[in-house]
Amino acid sequence: MNSGNSFYVTYQFSADNEPEAEKKAKDIAIEQSAELPYETIPTELKMFVGQVSMLKQVGAKRWQSSIRFKTELVAGDPLQFLNVIFGNVSIKPGIQITDLDRSYLSELFPGPAIGIQGIRDRLDAHGRPLSCTALKPLGSSAENLAELAEQFASGGIDIIKDDHGLANQPMATFKSRVDECVRAIQKGMQLSGKKTLYFPNITGTPNQVMRRLQIAEQLGADGVLISPQITGLNSLIDITRSQTGLPVMAHPVFSGPYTIHKNSGFVPAIFYGVLWRAFGADCIIYPNAGGRFSYTLEECLNINRECRSRDLNLRTALPVPAGGIDRNSLPHWIEKYGENTLFLVGGSLYQHPEGLFVAAQEFQQTLTHYE
Amino acid sequence: MNSGNSFYVTYQFSADNEPEAEKKAKDIAIEQSAELPYETIPTELKMFVGQVSMLKQVGAKRWQSSIRFKTELVAGDPLQFLNVIFGNVSIKPGIQITDLDRSYLSELFPGPAIGIQGIRDRLDAHGRPLSCTALKPLGSSAENLAELAEQFASGGIDIIKDDHGLANQPMATFKSRVDECVRAIQKGMQLSGKKTLYFPNITGTPNQVMRRLQIAEQLGADGVLISPQITGLNSLIDITRSQTGLPVMAHPVFSGPYTIHKNSGFVPAIFYGVLWRAFGADCIIYPNAGGRFSYTLEECLNINRECRSRDLNLRTALPVPAGGIDRNSLPHWIEKYGENTLFLVGGSLYQHPEGLFVAAQEFQQTLTHYE
Repeated sequence: MNSGNSFYVTYQFSADNEPEAEKKAKDIAIEQSAELPYETIPTELKMFVGQVSMLKQVGAKRWQSSIRFKTELVAGDPLQFLNVIFGNVSIKPGIQITDLDRSYLSELFPGPAIGIQGIRDRLDAHGRPLSCTALKPLGSSAENLAELAEQFASGGIDIIKDDHGLANQPMATFKSRVDECVRAIQKGMQLSGKKTLYFPNITGTPNQVMRRLQIAEQLGADGVLISPQITGLNSLIDITRSQTGLPVMAHPVFSGPYTIHKNSGFVPAIFYGVLWRAFGADCIIYPNAGGRFSYTLEECLNINRECRSRDLNLRTALPVPAGGIDRNSLPHWIEKYGENTLFLVGGSLYQHPEGLFVAAQEFQQTLTHYE
Repeated sequence: MNSGNSFYVTYQFSADNEPEAEKKAKDIAIEQSAELPYETIPTELKMFVGQVSMLKQVGAKRWQSSIRFKTELVAGDPLQFLNVIFGNVSIKPGIQITDLDRSYLSELFPGPAIGIQGIRDRLDAHGRPLSCTALKPLGSSAENLAELAEQFASGGIDIIKDDHGLANQPMATFKSRVDECVRAIQKGMQLSGKKTLYFPNITGTPNQVMRRLQIAEQLGADGVLISPQITGLNSLIDITRSQTGLPVMAHPVFSGPYTIHKNSGFVPAIFYGVLWRAFGADCIIYPNAGGRFSYTLEECLNINRECRSRDLNLRTALPVPAGGIDRNSLPHWIEKYGENTLFLVGGSLYQHPEGLFVAAQEFQQTLTHYE
């Protein structure tokens, strides 16, 4: 479907009856475009007001409407897109975005720099799920973290990422940490005989982010971890468009308010699987069902589907279930989620009675078993 | 109170009884620091785990706990501060931040560049509430917007801001819009005989934001409008630290999910009045009670109080109630909110039967009446 010069956004909201639902849909359309009482909008500018193109009841007192907005309102600016779809209505209760126009997203956004295929090529790992773990806890020195990294790499983990809280603390400054961990992982790889990628965490002001990205590349990191809701979604775009070619793993810290409320914000699959992928995340971490967080299995399956979907004409992204996955439950999750999944197991590896090296080896064996 | 080498964050959350509440408080303390099962944290690093310093019941099945975190975890990085206070727990339901350690915020953050006193000095307006309106709707040409600006300035409005959706659309590119509006407002000021400040909206990637800030300054704008939850909270800091000296007005688009849920996210006064002020907003727009949005009068009064509070040892910020204020209700709101308030009235001025110039004049008369 060609988006022409408009695109649709699908909202769900509460209303007691059809006339009230019609009024609410129109209110959203105006709030997100002209943001003026309708009668005060000059006649020649009424063409820029959002148009309600569909309205239907989807539950008891729950309605769904698709609203079309002119692409001129966005004018090629991905941040202004966020503003048009959800800026002001984010402050109104009970409104949730359940779908977005994929054809327009494919035009407007860059998408992942290398995507699933690129990550697999760099790992030379095909036809099996992938493994990921994290370096922690906060307070560790760069040397401590590098020791952990070496053990994980020796055991054959595919991707090792920093904890999302590792910034530039004095006990493990960004530069010293990346430098030590890259070298430790190279040592580990000699033992495992396979490739391990390292993704240090990048935070900071825009200037700091780009400077650390350069440092990460120069020191031999293979990608970076970004928390889009902390450093700004635009940092994903800047990194994707940079010349480093480093893939980005996106972490959901600080993003929960957009996705944990059942009738408000965004459906998780649209927020993480569609929007974050569109902004440029190659790997998308989300809190898995059954762990310490609150998404349902269905919501997780939907995130996976959107990350990998061909409906969005951008590179696919690797879904990364996380947040309390028990290493012993991996066969269960592999069966549910399939091979195009990067499993992030943290605490459960640290709990292994025989240590990180054995924990990593077992983790890796569970995955390669599916090759 | 001196924060020493730790700072506190106060959370409210649900629990059926005291043992469950104790467990939940400890879970938050660990989740936001080590993020590892407690027994796997090396002994020498246990000092970096958050400490529960207070726990009390505040309602039926509702508990409040203050947790102290080491400042070393933040290491002077305002974004890492967001991560420590609310990163992972943002994804857990029913957890709300109700207070933050002011002494640490005063150390860590820059605060407003010029604050209430600075805005008043630049306007030469003391001892009375201030007026603000917006240029809209989207789709207007730069010439149209400049015409509106001239009428508002002729009527004596204190601050004219762009609509938050004015980005760099072809019908009103950033540069042409700022240029035309600055000149139109200068004309209007000759008629009114008083000062009017102009705050164009800035969005875009970090590079674009800083470039547009420079352009705004060169063309004679008096401040800028920023949507922190779209361009990133760090953009506030970058602008505050820039050499332009331009004050920042912060707009709440896309921020609703953090503040509209009663038992989740942040208490609005802490998010807008404390956090946004700390990040550097000189003027803080929030959706007023009784308008199109959902905060209560008490929540609005609390935002006002925090914006102006001396508890935070940074410059004060001007609270900006907005979102459907009727021009005829101004005496009511002035009485409630007092003189250190910037009233943002948009649609209701556009609805005035005698046009914008008269609407602006009446608005201004209502305020100067309180001098």
